[in-house]
Amino acid sequence: MALLVQKYGGTSVGSIERIEAVAENVIAYKEQGNDMVVVLSAMSGETNRLLDMAQQISPKASGRELDVLLTTGEQVAIALLAMALEKRGHAAKSYTGGQASILTDSAHNKARIKSVDNQKIRQDLDAGYIIVVAGFQGVDEESNITTLGRGGSDTTGVAMAAALNADECQIFTDVDGVYTTDPRIEPDARRLKTITFEEMLEMASLGSKVLQTRAVEFAQKHAVPLRVLSSFKQGEGTLIISDNQTDETMEQALVSGIAFNRDEAQLTINGVSDTPGVAYGILGPISDANIEVDMILQNVSADGTTDFTFTVNRSDYENAMTSLKKTAKQLKAREVSGNNKIVKISIVGVGMRSHAGIATRMFEVLAKEGINILMISTSEIKISVVVDEKYLELGVRALHEGFDLKSER
Amino acid sequence: MALLVQKYGGTSVGSIERIEAVAENVIAYKEQGNDMVVVLSAMSGETNRLLDMAQQISPKASGRELDVLLTTGEQVAIALLAMALEKRGHAAKSYTGGQASILTDSAHNKARIKSVDNQKIRQDLDAGYIIVVAGFQGVDEESNITTLGRGGSDTTGVAMAAALNADECQIFTDVDGVYTTDPRIEPDARRLKTITFEEMLEMASLGSKVLQTRAVEFAQKHAVPLRVLSSFKQGEGTLIISDNQTDETMEQALVSGIAFNRDEAQLTINGVSDTPGVAYGILGPISDANIEVDMILQNVSADGTTDFTFTVNRSDYENAMTSLKKTAKQLKAREVSGNNKIVKISIVGVGMRSHAGIATRMFEVLAKEGINILMISTSEIKISVVVDEKYLELGVRALHEGFDLKSER
Repeated sequence: MALLVQKYGGTSVGSIERIEAVAENVIAYKEQGNDMVVVLSAMSGETNRLLDMAQQISPKASGRELDVLLTTGEQVAIALLAMALEKRGHAAKSYTGGQASILTDSAHNKARIKSVDNQKIRQDLDAGYIIVVAGFQGVDEESNITTLGRGGSDTTGVAMAAALNADECQIFTDVDGVYTTDPRIEPDARRLKTITFEEMLEMASLGSKVLQTRAVEFAQKHAVPLRVLSSFKQGEGTLIISDNQTDETMEQALVSGIAFNRDEAQLTINGVSDTPGVAYGILGPISDANIEVDMILQNVSADGTTDFTFTVNRSDYENAMTSLKKTAKQLKAREVSGNNKIVKISIVGVGMRSHAGIATRMFEVLAKEGINILMISTSEIKISVVVDEKYLELGVRALHEGFDLKSER
Repeated sequence: MALLVQKYGGTSVGSIERIEAVAENVIAYKEQGNDMVVVLSAMSGETNRLLDMAQQISPKASGRELDVLLTTGEQVAIALLAMALEKRGHAAKSYTGGQASILTDSAHNKARIKSVDNQKIRQDLDAGYIIVVAGFQGVDEESNITTLGRGGSDTTGVAMAAALNADECQIFTDVDGVYTTDPRIEPDARRLKTITFEEMLEMASLGSKVLQTRAVEFAQKHAVPLRVLSSFKQGEGTLIISDNQTDETMEQALVSGIAFNRDEAQLTINGVSDTPGVAYGILGPISDANIEVDMILQNVSADGTTDFTFTVNRSDYENAMTSLKKTAKQLKAREVSGNNKIVKISIVGVGMRSHAGIATRMFEVLAKEGINILMISTSEIKISVVVDEKYLELGVRALHEGFDLKSER
């Protein structure tokens, strides 16, 4: 008998019918002999409805009161699911974040979980209850209601699994797992049976938003086995595991997937005198304007000046350019240029750590298709290239084929 | 400087505009130098919306989960009002029932308050905060969420006022006070400046539903000065006070008001043999059928049999009649009759305690108008008569005039 924590997102509980379907799904697992803890998001649309009311009153509502308001969304969902479970003859008990003793810091709207007291839930599980926990919420030491910020329900799921030492934390989503790449671009994309936490984090940060990065980090830290499944379709989904859990077979997979990000824009400042502090001088004003920078490249020059390139989210391009032009004047730079028609394509895989030649193979594949690489950036388990946006689909498909991802590992 | 507890009902917070208006009203009192605690109901319509969702899932949802669901309504309201207060530059803090430490028993959907721990609220009041408390809700000793049942927010207001030793508990409603009778029937009806708890209880039980009976009892028990005001219209409303607080002038008012109840029906069983236990034999089956009985009259007969009459809510008339006919057969009663076209009119006033002749005056007034009295029932501070429903308006107006209620006390 296992202890499972299952988390269902907003669309999975988006209507009375969907909630009834979740109840059926949970009961199926329960009747296989598992102890069940279910974590829910608010019904889809509800959070926006509440935010809209807050917005009508005050666009600058305090974090504390926003949290009091928003947490009602999950509270409605847990009560309704508990009712649906009871109707089917199963003892169920709902827990708000406070009732589940999910203790957080006091950073309203983006609180971090400090501890979870599992004692009461453990007792109720022993008594045969299915436990339904409100995701996204907790309380601080003063019993103020807090929320965990975007994707917080995933984090609640992982935190409950860690506190209860669950056998698995199952995240039910719109998709049936993590794919080698986006199937809308490459129809041959294949669902991965397993992926490591590190690979998952790279995939997520590169735009494959199946799971919230924070939840993955949390699961990795507490060694919680995490599985992504579809709440609309039967299947095993994808299991996310620690690097040291990978078996022989898996080690031979050099590349696990191809990620990409369409929302990129690149800015370059040429001919800056190459003195200490120049990077700070260029990027300081950018971050002061609340613009997040992704890739950063600096080339060595022979003439005592340097060229400096970075990428930002495409929606920040105009603001970043205005800021950079001001900086260029101050630094007496030669020129400023930019391009907001670019995309980033990355290959991700823990296997590439110990294998040279992966980068070479990637560049070879792209060269064969005549795709010009504008920027390159590498990490231990990822290689990213920036290319003209018109090459996105071609590049992804070529790499998927080039690294033989459609075959079963 | 006074400490005021103000309670606003569902229609008073029924829209964003109404919530903004409540904020303005609260701030006006705050700026007069008062410490303010505000208790809110859910926005009107919200409770029904939530109940409707529960109903779709299960008509027999558990009390515990219904309470988890319904309490979100008040929680939304308190967050929004706190935001509206903050927007106007006033420090405000919302409290759920649990956060306000409103401890109840575990009778879900109809819990009773056991204690309120005022420590945190007291600290926040001292720090200058306006406190906004969710009405209708509490927690039991296991931290399960409970609700107080119908009109529970009034009770929360009174409980907070009692716990904080407030100078006044102000209940803001759709009406601007308690009237000598319903102004829709008697345009000369006058708002009472004061009324005693006992009179208020009689008026409420007779159909003048301005305040929930339970809240009035609670206020009486804890000697909380209670005031009914309009949230839509300026005015002093009606202050509800203890009998011993009434002053000289007030003691001279023999009758405070005329109450009535349209929803009456009367059933009579004639010629029952007058033996011990006959009342139980007749009413037992009625209460077993979950029908509440209001007036009960038994007449003495000469022939060893008795006639027994009682009234029920008009909607229960058919069921009660079916039950009574069965009983009549068993008791070998002579006959059963009934009338569901009757109403009850009552005069209420603490002054009548020490004054004979009030009843006589009442019967005289009704006789002059040719109104036939079908039943009479009296209590210490009330005399009720049952008459044909066609005489309701005429009777109320005649009594209002006859006891000179339109003149200021």
